[in-house]
Amino acid sequence: MTPPEQELEYLGDPETSPLRHPGSSHSPPHLGPSEQGRKQRGVGSPYLFIQLNELLGSPQNQEWRETGRWMLFEEKLDLQARRWSSPHVPTLSLSSVWELRALLTTGLVLLDCPVQSLSELTEQVTRVESLNPEVRERLKLVLLQRPQHHMQPMCWSAARRLGTSLCRGKKPLPQILRGPLWQKLPPETEAAAVLVGELDFLTQRLGVFVHLSKPVVLGTLTEVPLPIRFVCIILGPPALGKGYHEMGRAAAVLLSDQLFRCSVCQASSPQDLVSAVDVFLEEVMVLPPGGGDLTERIPPSKCLSILHKRYMEGKGGRGRRPSFCIDLSLTDSSFLLYSTSIWPRSPMLSPLEGYWVMPLIISRNHGLDYLPFRLWVGIWVAFFCLVLVATEASVLVRYFTRFTEEGFCALISLIFIYDAIGKMLSLTEAYPIYRPGLSEDTGFDPYGCLCYFPDTKGGQKGENKDAVLGLANVSLLSPPECALQGGQPRGLGCHFVPDIAFFSLLLFFATFLCATILKNFKSSHFFPSKVRKVISDFSTVLAILLGCGLDASLGLSTPKLIVPSEFKPTHPGRRWLVPLFGANPWWLCLATALPALLMSILVFMDQQITAVILNRKEYQLQKGAGFHLDLFWVAMLMLMTSAFGLPWYVSTTVISLAHMDSLRRESETCVPGELPHFLGIREQRLTGLVVFILTGLSIFLAPGLKFIPMPVLYGIFFYMGMAALSSTQVKRVKLLLMPAKHQPDLLLLRHVPLSRIHLFTTVQLICLGLLWAVKSTAAAIVFPLMLLGLVGIRKALEWVFSPQELSWLDDPVREENEKKVQEEKVLELEFNPRRNNSEHGSL
Amino acid sequence: MTPPEQELEYLGDPETSPLRHPGSSHSPPHLGPSEQGRKQRGVGSPYLFIQLNELLGSPQNQEWRETGRWMLFEEKLDLQARRWSSPHVPTLSLSSVWELRALLTTGLVLLDCPVQSLSELTEQVTRVESLNPEVRERLKLVLLQRPQHHMQPMCWSAARRLGTSLCRGKKPLPQILRGPLWQKLPPETEAAAVLVGELDFLTQRLGVFVHLSKPVVLGTLTEVPLPIRFVCIILGPPALGKGYHEMGRAAAVLLSDQLFRCSVCQASSPQDLVSAVDVFLEEVMVLPPGGGDLTERIPPSKCLSILHKRYMEGKGGRGRRPSFCIDLSLTDSSFLLYSTSIWPRSPMLSPLEGYWVMPLIISRNHGLDYLPFRLWVGIWVAFFCLVLVATEASVLVRYFTRFTEEGFCALISLIFIYDAIGKMLSLTEAYPIYRPGLSEDTGFDPYGCLCYFPDTKGGQKGENKDAVLGLANVSLLSPPECALQGGQPRGLGCHFVPDIAFFSLLLFFATFLCATILKNFKSSHFFPSKVRKVISDFSTVLAILLGCGLDASLGLSTPKLIVPSEFKPTHPGRRWLVPLFGANPWWLCLATALPALLMSILVFMDQQITAVILNRKEYQLQKGAGFHLDLFWVAMLMLMTSAFGLPWYVSTTVISLAHMDSLRRESETCVPGELPHFLGIREQRLTGLVVFILTGLSIFLAPGLKFIPMPVLYGIFFYMGMAALSSTQVKRVKLLLMPAKHQPDLLLLRHVPLSRIHLFTTVQLICLGLLWAVKSTAAAIVFPLMLLGLVGIRKALEWVFSPQELSWLDDPVREENEKKVQEEKVLELEFNPRRNNSEHGSL
Repeated sequence: MTPPEQELEYLGDPETSPLRHPGSSHSPPHLGPSEQGRKQRGVGSPYLFIQLNELLGSPQNQEWRETGRWMLFEEKLDLQARRWSSPHVPTLSLSSVWELRALLTTGLVLLDCPVQSLSELTEQVTRVESLNPEVRERLKLVLLQRPQHHMQPMCWSAARRLGTSLCRGKKPLPQILRGPLWQKLPPETEAAAVLVGELDFLTQRLGVFVHLSKPVVLGTLTEVPLPIRFVCIILGPPALGKGYHEMGRAAAVLLSDQLFRCSVCQASSPQDLVSAVDVFLEEVMVLPPGGGDLTERIPPSKCLSILHKRYMEGKGGRGRRPSFCIDLSLTDSSFLLYSTSIWPRSPMLSPLEGYWVMPLIISRNHGLDYLPFRLWVGIWVAFFCLVLVATEASVLVRYFTRFTEEGFCALISLIFIYDAIGKMLSLTEAYPIYRPGLSEDTGFDPYGCLCYFPDTKGGQKGENKDAVLGLANVSLLSPPECALQGGQPRGLGCHFVPDIAFFSLLLFFATFLCATILKNFKSSHFFPSKVRKVISDFSTVLAILLGCGLDASLGLSTPKLIVPSEFKPTHPGRRWLVPLFGANPWWLCLATALPALLMSILVFMDQQITAVILNRKEYQLQKGAGFHLDLFWVAMLMLMTSAFGLPWYVSTTVISLAHMDSLRRESETCVPGELPHFLGIREQRLTGLVVFILTGLSIFLAPGLKFIPMPVLYGIFFYMGMAALSSTQVKRVKLLLMPAKHQPDLLLLRHVPLSRIHLFTTVQLICLGLLWAVKSTAAAIVFPLMLLGLVGIRKALEWVFSPQELSWLDDPVREENEKKVQEEKVLELEFNPRRNNSEHGSL
Repeated sequence: MTPPEQELEYLGDPETSPLRHPGSSHSPPHLGPSEQGRKQRGVGSPYLFIQLNELLGSPQNQEWRETGRWMLFEEKLDLQARRWSSPHVPTLSLSSVWELRALLTTGLVLLDCPVQSLSELTEQVTRVESLNPEVRERLKLVLLQRPQHHMQPMCWSAARRLGTSLCRGKKPLPQILRGPLWQKLPPETEAAAVLVGELDFLTQRLGVFVHLSKPVVLGTLTEVPLPIRFVCIILGPPALGKGYHEMGRAAAVLLSDQLFRCSVCQASSPQDLVSAVDVFLEEVMVLPPGGGDLTERIPPSKCLSILHKRYMEGKGGRGRRPSFCIDLSLTDSSFLLYSTSIWPRSPMLSPLEGYWVMPLIISRNHGLDYLPFRLWVGIWVAFFCLVLVATEASVLVRYFTRFTEEGFCALISLIFIYDAIGKMLSLTEAYPIYRPGLSEDTGFDPYGCLCYFPDTKGGQKGENKDAVLGLANVSLLSPPECALQGGQPRGLGCHFVPDIAFFSLLLFFATFLCATILKNFKSSHFFPSKVRKVISDFSTVLAILLGCGLDASLGLSTPKLIVPSEFKPTHPGRRWLVPLFGANPWWLCLATALPALLMSILVFMDQQITAVILNRKEYQLQKGAGFHLDLFWVAMLMLMTSAFGLPWYVSTTVISLAHMDSLRRESETCVPGELPHFLGIREQRLTGLVVFILTGLSIFLAPGLKFIPMPVLYGIFFYMGMAALSSTQVKRVKLLLMPAKHQPDLLLLRHVPLSRIHLFTTVQLICLGLLWAVKSTAAAIVFPLMLLGLVGIRKALEWVFSPQELSWLDDPVREENEKKVQEEKVLELEFNPRRNNSEHGSL
């Protein structure tokens, strides 16, 4: 299968090679390794695509076939199934590395070789003394054969169709001609080709290692038309077994190690190359015998990809145009926020629920005028907040450790969940369930609705019979009409409709399950990842739509969302501006300072803890936090909403967390087998803007919104509460229930005794229970002080736990830090080749 | 921290050591390796517990601490957290193995050493020329120090309390004194101790390797009081890093390799030991650099445990008493079967649903007497079945490949699911949902129930007003009473109760979810595995109880299970024995042969396919299959049930599969990190017996059974259908929806191109669709022939697919076989040390 002559020429022509590395055309044509060259050579590109080509087929009809490829992980071509294996961690047998080392010691090593084309390369590598001219020519022919890739680069086939005009042009190739792998590879990726095979005309093994001084595209040697930096050729007489294949794999794995490549780039003699292999061998990890003959492949796990992450930092798509379309996921994020903002009593959902109504309760109990009273509380809260801003009290935030955050966050998640369930249960009170027992007691069908009239007929005729039959003067008029006619509607059916309670429960659970399942759909294996991502991003919208559809299809009169269609004060009598005193005595403006003080603590803590959580290092936010500015604006809003009698408006932790979570950005994977990692948050002002525009538009959207059943919204809130709860460190609570041997391999567990972990968790749970108790009972007024008490308890814990334990238990980014430490260590060691191997293990 | 003198004596006294290996007391006291000794030595016990003891602490106050242990996997003691790490695959650095090899080359190697006690061993190992007498004495003292184990063997502490009477006795120790690990280890487990440490009085490294000719308990050297076979001591002057620790680990990993141990047992000179290390090194698998410095540990995966499975074969609990209590899981299995047998129309649930009623339909359509007609069908079916038995037609079963089985099994699983959902939907018809629209049309409250009377008052007085108000002569009597009094009950409420439909749906889903979640609870990580197992085994019972509890707590009149309380024919008029002809013409006894023939095919296929599925190799059944005997009894039962007019009784695939599944037996794990594997089915006759006793007792249980709501039972059947569906090879259908790169790494996918797999799956799905269509339409009568057609289609597929592809796609135990092949290969290679490494890879 020799390719036609003109193609050979084309392949070998350096000037027409369209994808040559920029700058490679003017390299000085020196042959041996020169000082200048060695200075130029740095570490080289961190990205190397390695391809293994093997000579397959009968001796008469051999051809090069691609059988493996490497970036970070190995992919093997399953020839029978004609597909790439899943990327896996390559495992070599030690003997194959040794064999390769032996071959390189005696073989031909060309360092800094300035070849420009495949034919030139072929010339170079066949200059081995032991070969006679005839064998040399046959070898050249074999090496120049066009390899069969699993997926032919579209360029080459398209080029033939288009008269090679495209491929020969200097312009970069159109995206579509490059295949999916090409589009994924980082921009500066170079390639390496490993060629192995058995040739019956050879009498001894031939090993050649070539390091090209300038990478250059060498015909169709690799599946992706990348400039090639390394070529390794291992040929020999036919032998039993897979020796050559394994040696080829060993060469590829060696090349996939960046440190080895560094050493090769800095090598000046073949001996240096062998030393580099030795360094590599000292660094390898050894698995005891047993793993080798198994068909299972070690999947790329997180641990391994962490190590390789550094290779990938700063990478971008290959020539991908910047996208100006609005990111789809922002839509769902906006929708999520909007659906919370149209909650009928939105501010009630804040952690301060039950506390916000305090002014109402006090004013009622003491017969005060509510709105002016509330206005004064608001003024004082704003004043205190401004004082806190002026005194830069936000520095106190440093006492808010993970302990405080978790307690607070868990509390409000629980409030969310409790609230959603409570609302659902109150629905079953509003739409009571028909119980057969009821009917027997009263002899009255509780679901009917009859309009009873006083006896209008006056006559006693037939009274006996009427009494016997239970006849009465009733009609089936609707309750309002009945009342108009002077009748008296009786029976449960006059007020309620059946089936609503259970149907609401079904809607509630269906929405919750749907939102949860769709959110987790991202991590399933079905459908392409883009589809999964869209479904996952729109989980909330889809869940709400499903709930509405279910409700609409049955046409039951479930309680629906009621949105006012006008913008006006709810109380018909009052004007927008609340009067300063109203019916209240003048001294009240001073007395309100006390409740306002407690409330200020709450506002401060709520605002600051939310800000601290959102600004955690692990979220990698770019924009700085504005603790004081935020608090200032909270104070201003408090003043304004009090003056106009609007609901108080504060930051709500659960919704903020849900918002943040819906804006997560993960890396696209460049390299097969690489796991996506968290890149940061899409920081923008768009979702906020959209939410407020939508909230404003709600007045006009009212006809549409009235189709949203309340149980669906409750289901979404339940979902949000659960999601917020699981995003905090609930895993420690789970540890309480797990037997030690089934616990996951957390770093925390390696450093802190289990009993201490459990003690810490128990203290947290007790604190949470106390907070909940205080919040729910009459003592609710001291709730803000209790919340402050959390900080004190955390301080007290320093007597019980050692600082080292607390750093593991209460340090928000400890696990992150640990990984960073590891990474730095690896990096440092990588550039210090003869590292101390004995550092391994941490006893 | 030198131990007191008398304890030293005790530890060193061979006669008082209570746990010495039986037979070790009379070993001949020869020193060097002898021919006799080498013949005695075989491979040794396959089980070796290896413990690493390290000298830790300040130089003045050093003590031996256990820091690692090995069986199949490595467990490391996390000193800070004071706990064992999870078992993981040990990874070594290659250099530590090399260092160890160097040390063994120059160090002291004692093979076949006949030591009997720790003091004797200490004597032996300190006989190194390079040591001066003072150092030798100090070394002895260090070696005799009592090591601190993570968990002290209870024996030693208990012995001290009980005046050492227990430990010194010849009787085996009570279970409780041996600790949890001891109880898990297989009976013949031996031990090895690796001792490493830094000693400031040493000037050079000291390496000692001892192979004991007879294993003996050496004081408290190991955590578990096992007889010790190998001791490896690595001591040296203080050095930087973890060099000694890593060498100790390398020694332990070497010892954990069975092949290495074999070589050591057969070694006659120190050089043989070094060769054994070399052999080990040739067999190791190499991971490229990067895995070493990471804190993540490679978890023991299935692939690795398969390899090690052979070590564990034939193992039993250590001295565990045979359990005579009835296995708890049998209870749930019985309950599951019972709950299907009390299904009101039990035989309808067979795959033949819709077909069983054929005699009824025919006899109705042609005005025939049903029971005699059915009797004749039954007689013919029995006759044909007996003919099939007599002609040994069961050999035809070999044409039933996985293709036929899967099609049949999927069909009946779908019937189960369809049936459960259909029954639920029919409930919502029986208990219609109130829709507001209804009320507006008729002006009538549909849920009320009024008793209308013809106008009894006769007078026209107030008629106008009555008409205006819609007054009518109505009463609120209950419908039966109303009818008695001559009235007319009107309104939906007279027949139905509200809320039932949705509540039934809730019950249905709750039962299904509960059964599914509880069944999968076994694989969660919460609670000890025994608790999980009980919960998982009783999932069905718990789900039914939950459903009943939920129903009872609300007290709604959901449809309940109705069980007759008497054993008598349903039709009041008939006697038990069905008359031969009744009102039917005589020729009918011949004409019934035709439908009976079709039905016989169905019975045959149902019976045989169920038997084939249940007797698959992968279930490892011990009892042989009785294809002909089973069919014979089916014929007899058919005859009997027809004669007495009882429901026909056949094997039901779904229930049989559920039964089988509930009787799975998995191995208990002996070694940390080992995964439980399938041992077989608990083959017994108990569940069958219990089910039939319970079914018979149902007549007396009727008062209790009437509390079981029907939706709960439907939920269980839905669960069973889903479970049966997922137990067949649905994963290929899932592949259809998965993009190639997210597909799991199945062996099938490596050998058959994806497009061929999809083609095969599509053919199967089309067949299933056709079967379903035929079954549901008027053509149902040819359904049995269609089922036979499956076999034909499978034959036709041999033209489309290559035999090699079919062997992967349609071979039931191909994946199992593949694994077995792998295992055999490994075994063979293990005993052929210089194996051909190049066999790896399968291109």
